[in-house]
Amino acid sequence: MRIANLASRLVLITADGAVDVQKAGAGLFSSDPQAVYDRWAEFRDWAAQADLTGAVPFDPVALGAPTPAPRQVFAIGLNYREHVTEAGFTTPEGMPPVFTKYATSITGPVTQVILPKGGHTDWEVELVVVVGRRTYRVSEADAWSHVAGLTVGQDISERVIQMAGPAPQFSLGKSFPGFAPMGPWLVTPDEFDDPDDLELTCAINGEEVQRGRTRQLIFSVPALIAKLSAVLPLLPGDVIFTGTPAGVGLGRSPQRWLAPGDELVSSIEGIGELRQRFVG
Amino acid sequence: MRIANLASRLVLITADGAVDVQKAGAGLFSSDPQAVYDRWAEFRDWAAQADLTGAVPFDPVALGAPTPAPRQVFAIGLNYREHVTEAGFTTPEGMPPVFTKYATSITGPVTQVILPKGGHTDWEVELVVVVGRRTYRVSEADAWSHVAGLTVGQDISERVIQMAGPAPQFSLGKSFPGFAPMGPWLVTPDEFDDPDDLELTCAINGEEVQRGRTRQLIFSVPALIAKLSAVLPLLPGDVIFTGTPAGVGLGRSPQRWLAPGDELVSSIEGIGELRQRFVG
Repeated sequence: MRIANLASRLVLITADGAVDVQKAGAGLFSSDPQAVYDRWAEFRDWAAQADLTGAVPFDPVALGAPTPAPRQVFAIGLNYREHVTEAGFTTPEGMPPVFTKYATSITGPVTQVILPKGGHTDWEVELVVVVGRRTYRVSEADAWSHVAGLTVGQDISERVIQMAGPAPQFSLGKSFPGFAPMGPWLVTPDEFDDPDDLELTCAINGEEVQRGRTRQLIFSVPALIAKLSAVLPLLPGDVIFTGTPAGVGLGRSPQRWLAPGDELVSSIEGIGELRQRFVG
Repeated sequence: MRIANLASRLVLITADGAVDVQKAGAGLFSSDPQAVYDRWAEFRDWAAQADLTGAVPFDPVALGAPTPAPRQVFAIGLNYREHVTEAGFTTPEGMPPVFTKYATSITGPVTQVILPKGGHTDWEVELVVVVGRRTYRVSEADAWSHVAGLTVGQDISERVIQMAGPAPQFSLGKSFPGFAPMGPWLVTPDEFDDPDDLELTCAINGEEVQRGRTRQLIFSVPALIAKLSAVLPLLPGDVIFTGTPAGVGLGRSPQRWLAPGDELVSSIEGIGELRQRFVG
């Protein structure tokens, strides 16, 4: 199953287009794309047997984030070994670095992003996990049953703010407006042959800059859910950015940053792609 | 003016007790304590002339956080010079370290807190600022006009998670359940002779461990609002934990951590106090 946020309304995505959930369910579910996660199991059961005829084509530009207003956003740093090396850190053990991307940075999948003046703006394609029910102290074995679905995220990062100061700080420089595009839709785990092994790619103006597979994650999706939920409860609709593979601009020689006019395309196998155009 | 969250309902606090806002306003304002910040100017004007007779006494244990569900929580690290020194960091310049305290860590002012097993749990009394309107790219001179009010916060911190790993990480170890008590109420800036110079104190079992004044902040409240809003929009009801003065357990020799049975009292001049009892 695929769901999306189309012009701020919850829709189901079929081969023919989008089906408005509130209308198809005759008001059984809210049109609010964020609210669905609070009734996820009920919604999933309903959607499995709903009449999804009457889908209409749509313009991807009108898509918002599948989770436009999560109560908690967890973003994981340094979660692929080659990226740890290129970023100049040591490999995390026990617990990965966790930061947030503030809510005002979240957008849909096809956007224009303003480059911060004086900044060094970098790309990081990431698998994003959306939580489907309250999750506290769960084991890795149970973790996938707490996931509503997966989507593509870009952890766009301004490196001057991130790396300056007495300690590297991840949250603020990664939260400029538009720095957390997500989408194009949420895909439920049952749609994948192996949701723990998905290919991610990222290209600038058609030139591939990142390619990796999620089986290379230091902390896998189940491990992240177990580690985070050992500390605090994850809530329905919470988001986990799981980290980026190697190939970011920070790790290149010479370093490379996004420039006005650049088009960034970020994609994950079995989900879809994000498309960001950068302006000065 | 003082407002509070009493048993999940918005109240005005007077010398005689609490006045239920929804009832006093005959439904003009929601009972939801978080929703009031979206209509802050209108609410403030109404409250200034409202009939506040009929206040009733209340038990502080029934108070929740004045902002139980902020969309964004900004927490500032290393913002008093003596605390920077005791924590073993260098003084931030340009931009302070910013992290989050996750929403599930927020509670009211009088609570029992479970100490994480195997952790080193520390105290940090802090002035907390609540945003009263959308705030993007504002100057220091205009900053106070964007503040709804001030409250007391405790940035309770588990130091093992915070200091382990390839880089210090502030958000996760400071977000165990109950690690962000706030209250007892929100006090509007006009209630203070000088809202930029307030005394903070913190005591364990009656023994004072922290005493400082907010005029010692490296980044003042107006500076923080200007710096944060230069990056992203602050939303009504967003929260800023402004940092802690010296005297935390991490900086002592020998180091000291909170233990089962300890009672922590955190207070700020002109606002009130928080009271946390720790259990194993």
